[in-house]
Amino acid sequence: MLATIFLHEIAGTAVLTLLGCGVVANVLLNGTNGKGSDGIVIFFGWGLAVFCAVYVAYDTGAHINPAVTLALLVSPASEYAPNIPITAATTLAYLSAEFIGAFIGALVCYLAYKKHYDATDDAGAVLATFSTGPAIPAYGWNLVTEIIGTFVLIFVIIMFGNTPSGLGPLAVALLVVSIGASLGGPTGYAINPARDLGPRIAHALLPIKHKGGSNWAYSWVPIAGPVIGAVLAGLAAHVY
Amino acid sequence: MLATIFLHEIAGTAVLTLLGCGVVANVLLNGTNGKGSDGIVIFFGWGLAVFCAVYVAYDTGAHINPAVTLALLVSPASEYAPNIPITAATTLAYLSAEFIGAFIGALVCYLAYKKHYDATDDAGAVLATFSTGPAIPAYGWNLVTEIIGTFVLIFVIIMFGNTPSGLGPLAVALLVVSIGASLGGPTGYAINPARDLGPRIAHALLPIKHKGGSNWAYSWVPIAGPVIGAVLAGLAAHVY
Amino acid sequence: MLATIFLHEIAGTAVLTLLGCGVVANVLLNGTNGKGSDGIVIFFGWGLAVFCAVYVAYDTGAHINPAVTLALLVSPASEYAPNIPITAATTLAYLSAEFIGAFIGALVCYLAYKKHYDATDDAGAVLATFSTGPAIPAYGWNLVTEIIGTFVLIFVIIMFGNTPSGLGPLAVALLVVSIGASLGGPTGYAINPARDLGPRIAHALLPIKHKGGSNWAYSWVPIAGPVIGAVLAGLAAHVY
Amino acid sequence: MLATIFLHEIAGTAVLTLLGCGVVANVLLNGTNGKGSDGIVIFFGWGLAVFCAVYVAYDTGAHINPAVTLALLVSPASEYAPNIPITAATTLAYLSAEFIGAFIGALVCYLAYKKHYDATDDAGAVLATFSTGPAIPAYGWNLVTEIIGTFVLIFVIIMFGNTPSGLGPLAVALLVVSIGASLGGPTGYAINPARDLGPRIAHALLPIKHKGGSNWAYSWVPIAGPVIGAVLAGLAAHVY
Repeated sequence: MLATIFLHEIAGTAVLTLLGCGVVANVLLNGTNGKGSDGIVIFFGWGLAVFCAVYVAYDTGAHINPAVTLALLVSPASEYAPNIPITAATTLAYLSAEFIGAFIGALVCYLAYKKHYDATDDAGAVLATFSTGPAIPAYGWNLVTEIIGTFVLIFVIIMFGNTPSGLGPLAVALLVVSIGASLGGPTGYAINPARDLGPRIAHALLPIKHKGGSNWAYSWVPIAGPVIGAVLAGLAAHVY
Repeated sequence: MLATIFLHEIAGTAVLTLLGCGVVANVLLNGTNGKGSDGIVIFFGWGLAVFCAVYVAYDTGAHINPAVTLALLVSPASEYAPNIPITAATTLAYLSAEFIGAFIGALVCYLAYKKHYDATDDAGAVLATFSTGPAIPAYGWNLVTEIIGTFVLIFVIIMFGNTPSGLGPLAVALLVVSIGASLGGPTGYAINPARDLGPRIAHALLPIKHKGGSNWAYSWVPIAGPVIGAVLAGLAAHVY
Repeated sequence: MLATIFLHEIAGTAVLTLLGCGVVANVLLNGTNGKGSDGIVIFFGWGLAVFCAVYVAYDTGAHINPAVTLALLVSPASEYAPNIPITAATTLAYLSAEFIGAFIGALVCYLAYKKHYDATDDAGAVLATFSTGPAIPAYGWNLVTEIIGTFVLIFVIIMFGNTPSGLGPLAVALLVVSIGASLGGPTGYAINPARDLGPRIAHALLPIKHKGGSNWAYSWVPIAGPVIGAVLAGLAAHVY
Repeated sequence: MLATIFLHEIAGTAVLTLLGCGVVANVLLNGTNGKGSDGIVIFFGWGLAVFCAVYVAYDTGAHINPAVTLALLVSPASEYAPNIPITAATTLAYLSAEFIGAFIGALVCYLAYKKHYDATDDAGAVLATFSTGPAIPAYGWNLVTEIIGTFVLIFVIIMFGNTPSGLGPLAVALLVVSIGASLGGPTGYAINPARDLGPRIAHALLPIKHKGGSNWAYSWVPIAGPVIGAVLAGLAAHVY
């Protein structure tokens, strides 16, 4: 069972960051077909990245986000997915797979856009295709934004579970489109520590032609914010 | 039961205005990632705000709009939601929860975009992230537009109830996207008195840096228009 | 039964042109919130207009388009809708209701955007909010485009009927988004004689401030093209 | 059965390239209503082209793409579609129908946009409405991008088959929107040898007014890449 969790969550999270980082690359890097496309492309691009990723990791509940794993840990849920109990071992399997998968997805995205990375000398745009950053740096307020965004993500996902609906993965995708459009303005909506840290490590390691720093000073915000927001949402489910 | 109505309708309406005001903030405020995005972002942003809010308030029928509550009051419907009868007490619980939730959502949106509110000195743009206003002020015609928009909203929602469909909350979301794109041009489609008045009160109370007036002179239109449109649609359901 | 057909098809087609003409008005008329929005707003706006209209006319099979009625007449179908037989009387009820509804929807749209019609002195933009026109006038080729677009519309709708799917009205909506985006470039995709002629008559009769001609010379194309395309698709269903 | 495969896959693939090439024509050719629309129109346009095409070829499993046929050939699947066995004859029927259909769809698209092809003297834009090309020519990396894109396409389609979901053709459509937005930047996401080669042959044969070369030097990439990606995904399904 641990191997299944590991394989499926790595694959799912890799698809997530491959397609998610990919849409930002398409819009921001030089010379692409999608260069300069409207914000709607980013919002739907990330939402549909989640859509595809959820199918890939369906058998293990498609966490693909440590915030989901942690929220379930503190929520009234009794399993991580059908027949997958909540234990220290499964928790560790989910969390490690999520970060590894997110790292791998960013690597593959780099390969898909290799010539466009070479052609882009704006180091800020290059970093933005990997990880999030604050539109206006102010770590306290940036943290607040990430907490709010992740709270909405997790709380509504818990509501999906309580509601009859035939939408399944599409519902989660549309929720992510919504959070991107509505709450992504200040911090680029990490709302997922793995989605941010995995690609940031990839950015630091890859031999990208025009590379600047990986903005490690900010990197704790898209980890702490989602963790806090997820735990609050998981606890809120006890009383709602 | 009154407590359930109160809690769920407050939470649902708060999610509605958090995400709805949020998408306008993302597009209009200075320095955001979504600044200057196309109109499609607003239309889908508000539609998906409804999508999320409907799941949050699912157990109480997800009114999240006094126009829905009033339309049901005058329509052939015999309940506000499964096992929630139409009484003076439940009516009051719905209506008060909707206004309170809408106020809270706007507050949280302000927190999420705090630094961008600080950086925006266009008082009109700031107000537009809270409540609606007329593109061309002409209160009589503005009222007509809000009546038409709300009539379509409520009448089609009643049709959803009469039609087998697996879409559920998505259908309502797409209806709101449609009304925004098609009938939102003149008045910004309040089509919901709480969605407009709650955030307008928040605008008046919050210590926003570059704040102008809250345009109270117009504030009756996005209340009266939706009420009239909703009552007409509720009555039309008797003969259709 | 004739009264039901009449009422529901008028209401459905009125919602279709109210929302369909409305989205064009939002994008083209002066001073609206949607002025100058991207083409995607038009394509989704018309698609979702169909979505709403189909729910409103659901009980009578939601033809809302003489091309659908005529295609069913020549196709292998044995009924216009469950329990509505194909007779001369029902055919006439559908067709007349569709044109009347399309006319009414355009009237209501005019009321919703009254102040913006007053503020728009581009007579071509005003006409474009009512009926379609050729991007490059060449009636023969324009006819070909309308035939192709309507053939795809009707043929795929017939395929929906043969295929298990829980999407219902959403499938038709997405089909119309697709035809608009892919085949709407040359003629604005009337693909529905009522949707074009009803609003064109409204344009001719209404006291619009800055009004030019109603381009009657072209008006036969968006009638003949859809009729030909629909009949061809209805016949093709016999052998597919 | 071979005749059914032949007819339905030709029709489905023809609808695919009619609507797919059509949306590019609408955005790129001179004088269209959609000229200069945002990238989102292309991404949804191609996705919905798949949506419609899948319904048209539903009875034969809607391959409409040699990559799908080849992936099934090497995957654990035991049939090409319900009651259609995997044999040399059915394989040949699928593959030939896919290329013929893709050619026909491009021809019909040319007729629909005839006057706009006449009015467009940018030979690169004309070719782009038929087949894909590299944003930055570098055949090795272009091949990598097509392999990655097709792997995601096929692997996620296989996941759809393993997952309960009521979305059906819509899921495939959204997957194609996602791949276009996220991985279409460098090569225009052929991810389907027939979609690229069929229209390229049409481009070479048609008497287009302002025509340049058909870029045959590149034409092997959107064949080899999808074939490799599809075979890898089909094999991966054995161990996932």
